[in-house]
Amino acid sequence: MGSSTSESIKEGDWVLIYFDEKRKYVVRVEAGKQFHTTMGGIDLSSLIGKKFGDGDETNVGEPFVISRPRLVDLLETFHRFTQVIYPKDLGYILLSSGVGPGAKVVEAGTGTGYLASVLAYYVKPSGRVFTYETRKDFYLKAIKNFESIGLLPYITAKNKNIKDGIDEKDVDAVFLDLPDPWSIVDLAYDALIHGGSIVVFVPTVNQVERTVVALKKKGFKLIESVEIMMRKLKAVQGEMRPETVGIWHTGYIVRAQKL
Amino acid sequence: MGSSTSESIKEGDWVLIYFDEKRKYVVRVEAGKQFHTTMGGIDLSSLIGKKFGDGDETNVGEPFVISRPRLVDLLETFHRFTQVIYPKDLGYILLSSGVGPGAKVVEAGTGTGYLASVLAYYVKPSGRVFTYETRKDFYLKAIKNFESIGLLPYITAKNKNIKDGIDEKDVDAVFLDLPDPWSIVDLAYDALIHGGSIVVFVPTVNQVERTVVALKKKGFKLIESVEIMMRKLKAVQGEMRPETVGIWHTGYIVRAQKL
Amino acid sequence: MGSSTSESIKEGDWVLIYFDEKRKYVVRVEAGKQFHTTMGGIDLSSLIGKKFGDGDETNVGEPFVISRPRLVDLLETFHRFTQVIYPKDLGYILLSSGVGPGAKVVEAGTGTGYLASVLAYYVKPSGRVFTYETRKDFYLKAIKNFESIGLLPYITAKNKNIKDGIDEKDVDAVFLDLPDPWSIVDLAYDALIHGGSIVVFVPTVNQVERTVVALKKKGFKLIESVEIMMRKLKAVQGEMRPETVGIWHTGYIVRAQKL
Amino acid sequence: MGSSTSESIKEGDWVLIYFDEKRKYVVRVEAGKQFHTTMGGIDLSSLIGKKFGDGDETNVGEPFVISRPRLVDLLETFHRFTQVIYPKDLGYILLSSGVGPGAKVVEAGTGTGYLASVLAYYVKPSGRVFTYETRKDFYLKAIKNFESIGLLPYITAKNKNIKDGIDEKDVDAVFLDLPDPWSIVDLAYDALIHGGSIVVFVPTVNQVERTVVALKKKGFKLIESVEIMMRKLKAVQGEMRPETVGIWHTGYIVRAQKL
Repeated sequence: MGSSTSESIKEGDWVLIYFDEKRKYVVRVEAGKQFHTTMGGIDLSSLIGKKFGDGDETNVGEPFVISRPRLVDLLETFHRFTQVIYPKDLGYILLSSGVGPGAKVVEAGTGTGYLASVLAYYVKPSGRVFTYETRKDFYLKAIKNFESIGLLPYITAKNKNIKDGIDEKDVDAVFLDLPDPWSIVDLAYDALIHGGSIVVFVPTVNQVERTVVALKKKGFKLIESVEIMMRKLKAVQGEMRPETVGIWHTGYIVRAQKL
Repeated sequence: MGSSTSESIKEGDWVLIYFDEKRKYVVRVEAGKQFHTTMGGIDLSSLIGKKFGDGDETNVGEPFVISRPRLVDLLETFHRFTQVIYPKDLGYILLSSGVGPGAKVVEAGTGTGYLASVLAYYVKPSGRVFTYETRKDFYLKAIKNFESIGLLPYITAKNKNIKDGIDEKDVDAVFLDLPDPWSIVDLAYDALIHGGSIVVFVPTVNQVERTVVALKKKGFKLIESVEIMMRKLKAVQGEMRPETVGIWHTGYIVRAQKL
Repeated sequence: MGSSTSESIKEGDWVLIYFDEKRKYVVRVEAGKQFHTTMGGIDLSSLIGKKFGDGDETNVGEPFVISRPRLVDLLETFHRFTQVIYPKDLGYILLSSGVGPGAKVVEAGTGTGYLASVLAYYVKPSGRVFTYETRKDFYLKAIKNFESIGLLPYITAKNKNIKDGIDEKDVDAVFLDLPDPWSIVDLAYDALIHGGSIVVFVPTVNQVERTVVALKKKGFKLIESVEIMMRKLKAVQGEMRPETVGIWHTGYIVRAQKL
Repeated sequence: MGSSTSESIKEGDWVLIYFDEKRKYVVRVEAGKQFHTTMGGIDLSSLIGKKFGDGDETNVGEPFVISRPRLVDLLETFHRFTQVIYPKDLGYILLSSGVGPGAKVVEAGTGTGYLASVLAYYVKPSGRVFTYETRKDFYLKAIKNFESIGLLPYITAKNKNIKDGIDEKDVDAVFLDLPDPWSIVDLAYDALIHGGSIVVFVPTVNQVERTVVALKKKGFKLIESVEIMMRKLKAVQGEMRPETVGIWHTGYIVRAQKL
């Protein structure tokens, strides 16, 4: 996860267990715990002290290699209890917001914690993410998710309705992934620094419409509404073609700036 | 640029000069320099000491407001002498590589410096980007670009053909934006840490084909070939529709992992 | 235009004048008329009696070949005074309506006459298109367009608001290309045979929304809303890729059946 | 199927049996035959003499309505033994070819007979489709398919390899839906009238590449390579959005003209 050191694997590290192109697993090393896969069981204690790139076998003799997961692999380990945001959207949300290391940002609702995690990963170590969630159960599970991948130190999770107010001032960006983002537009404006961005992710055109109306009314500038589509190629030599079936829609990204 | 401080504008700072939705400019504050716009001239010295959000007027009385540019706004100021990579692609390239703060990455060719800048922005302050460029003129201009937006401290630019060898070892990711990425696949493999990603950006299907063949041959795993499309909405209340004309193609992103 | 005879060109025939890949013209042969191109003038009388495939020269010696235009080439000759419908949409509109030779169909508004012409072309010789247009000037120009390409015998053009009633009964399909198709849904239902299709073409999502609501309310079944996108390839050997810029949006097609 | 008469249903007619939005069936009325559905059985003899729009019940009392199927509904009844072409592609193939009533066209390979059927439907009654298929079993099944929907009178099916020669001369268009269309390009050129179109449908970019090279070499003009994408909308009032998952790729359409 961004570290180029080649030290030994220790308890609490996340590892990528790779068998083959169809079977790979991301798991956290915990002493005394057994990890079950379709290729057999792995005694996680036995991974401690090994190096990334080392190989091993399951208890039924299936060989695997131990490697490093990426951030997006770690997100896949989250217990998903709400709709998640895809990497194609997360990447554009991040870049269009202008947010980077050191930034202070607000996000709502927390949900599974995908977006907050990506933001925390890219604002750390000196930046901070403040994330709001009304549902207590979601809030508690999200905290577990953040903790599990080591990003909790950079996130302040709040079990609070963002509509009741944004506690933070002079934030670099506000990210909204909730059903009625238009109702937060005024609060977001007040919380943002001059030049800061509001970024909204919504699945329907009607939500884009209401959001853009609210943004204009509040005086936000440089409003942009886009959708990001990812098309996979079936890259076989001599038979190059896009995949037949795929995801055509996840949501729209609306971005605007306080200017 | 990721800073939430509200201190005064000083020489060397980048500012966003906003007149209206069609007229905005990104410029670096230099004492004694005049900046010319279609709305009149601005004496840049006069901006020093102002705060972000303050307003002012051009020498012909046109009002503007001074604000903070985002990373992608700064990239727009680069003198472009090669094809650049768009934010929609940069965001996915970044996320799919797994690279974040602290990472050590290699990139070639430098070109205008778009990709190296984005990488530097997201690996700083503790990470580093090593970027290779064969053409001396491009190399020199890219260094100027990096310097201008303050990212040079995190970038090692080399006027060297990456085919002659990658000097770095145990890098977290290798990014290739050049015409024949397949010829670098073996070198990239050797330079990567276990679990590290190679990410290739190419405009044609034939290049994807040759790259994927080379990646498979070398033993790279989890090879994925995608294209990212961005479609803009014309968001007018009661008349919501996608824009009529837009960009349909920039390039394909091929990603694989050393496993 | 669908005729495989190889008889001689005669007055009133449409011909395709082909110079090269960038310069081609579609013109109707009229005795005594001069046709001006960027490659020089052509005395149209001189084409009479020639055969398709014959070559000739302009008055400045530029060689061209005389050939047959397709229906879509003929449509390009229409004086365009309203937004036209593209072949990608026309083809799907036709097929999804189920309309073929012998069908009796209603269309509104006539506009430039693109859709009525395509329908007439595919229902002829025994079928018929009834097309409604409120604006007298459009109606008169459309008749000229129909006449010019020989489709007027299969079209009944009416200078009448379709909202005031559809005169025809038991029609196979109703096609609506006007701003408020929802207001015609009830009339269309009454005019259709059982099993007949209504096909609506509209540019905005809001129009799709209102149309679908009206269709459901009236009891139409098998309602389907789609958009057809055409992406061009830049097919150069060894450099296969989609075109960089293209048309991303024309309109949505809503289809339903009276069942 | 394009007929606006309201006469009674008779043996041999195709009917659309509509229960609800999820359950509809297309079946040919045959006396003495029982048709089984998930909603119960229907004695097809009982439909004879009824009118389109009449209702009836299955043997377990489930109500249905009898209506007219469209051409594309009839194609769905074909026993599919090869990859079929979708309406979105069929519509553009038809329009870009310029083929209409009265045209004489050649097609290969016949396959399931989708494309030949669409062509026959739109060139009838005076036009004709000549379709080539090397596999005897496909050829025999396709004839059954053509016969079943009443289009056999307009189609000459041949159990012959089109590579061994095109028997027809002066045809308006040649349609190729086979793995190596480039090998038929010369034969197609010779068979076409001047101005006639060749239209090729292939799934991979490599096939487009080889086809375009062959077309250029033979002297075909106005070569165009496109793909047609259809995106479905989930049209729910207040929640308008594209469908999440859908078909992203079927094939590419290459068209060129003999000029």
